[in-house]
Amino acid sequence: MTTTDTPVDNGVNVQALLDARTALTGAPEAAQFTWRASNEWLNGTHSRSTVEGFFGLGGEQTHRSTFTYDADHPEVFASEDNGPTPVEIVLMGLASCLTGGIAAVAQNREIQLRSVKASLEGDMDILGILGGDPEVRNGFTGIRVRYDIDADATPDEIEALVAQSQKRSAVFDVITNPTNVTVEVN
Amino acid sequence: MTTTDTPVDNGVNVQALLDARTALTGAPEAAQFTWRASNEWLNGTHSRSTVEGFFGLGGEQTHRSTFTYDADHPEVFASEDNGPTPVEIVLMGLASCLTGGIAAVAQNREIQLRSVKASLEGDMDILGILGGDPEVRNGFTGIRVRYDIDADATPDEIEALVAQSQKRSAVFDVITNPTNVTVEVN
Repeated sequence: MTTTDTPVDNGVNVQALLDARTALTGAPEAAQFTWRASNEWLNGTHSRSTVEGFFGLGGEQTHRSTFTYDADHPEVFASEDNGPTPVEIVLMGLASCLTGGIAAVAQNREIQLRSVKASLEGDMDILGILGGDPEVRNGFTGIRVRYDIDADATPDEIEALVAQSQKRSAVFDVITNPTNVTVEVN
Repeated sequence: MTTTDTPVDNGVNVQALLDARTALTGAPEAAQFTWRASNEWLNGTHSRSTVEGFFGLGGEQTHRSTFTYDADHPEVFASEDNGPTPVEIVLMGLASCLTGGIAAVAQNREIQLRSVKASLEGDMDILGILGGDPEVRNGFTGIRVRYDIDADATPDEIEALVAQSQKRSAVFDVITNPTNVTVEVN
């Protein structure tokens, strides 16, 4: 922690999060969230996903606006490349989860961030998804995330910041640990 | 499979994918892909992810255009809600992967799709990410995907179509099975 004349401001209201933790520990049913997305096929491998509302704090919540993100396959897969691939979208989810966490943890530790940039790489043997080799998994064989961070902190403090964000990251957990997914047709 | 006067066209070039499978089975090094994303912190929990290029078929590939998707936390987390949450982005990745797969498998099975819609729900106890209960995981406790599909096929054929897409889905694999993620600071 560095003492500065200007209060640290990373744009995160840490007090509200700490208050929420206290309040929800005493009312654990309000901590049960359900996140939602819908998806509509457009043509070929091109589809559009929409996020509007979610359930949490005991009731229905609505985003400030509706978010729609397209996905597609690239031209090397004989597709039209109208959006990032679904696996690139997952990398975006991981990156944004870790970066948001870094900002929140930095605020809590009174570290002023100046710039946070991440680059992500996910390796995949596409013989899996093509059905060319039953021994090859469909997903990533591994993911590497590298951060470049300019902050009012020592290299060790920055390392610890990123480690704490990883420890509390929802998407890091989703990718590194198994989650049950049921797929049904109405 | 239904015989119709009009050829089935879901906009997927299945022959190219089958040819790729044959070619890549004989040249497995070309099947090694690396997908990439970068991410930049904007303010608070708001960040912007960018997808531009990837490595595959033995060389660098570029998307037809650059895709940038924002992420943020909602107002109930005292954030500005400038984008979907990272976990909602993961749901979008899952949805688009399964839907693209349904179109490809349908084309291969000569099933004409008319409409494909998915709704996804992911449950989460946010005491995990808030650090309020060490026994609670950060990620989803479970995800449900429901499809409504209008296609030139029987209900059993549609069920089988969705099951085959799930079997070949990269993101379904990423979420249901563990993947190693390393996070480093430069």
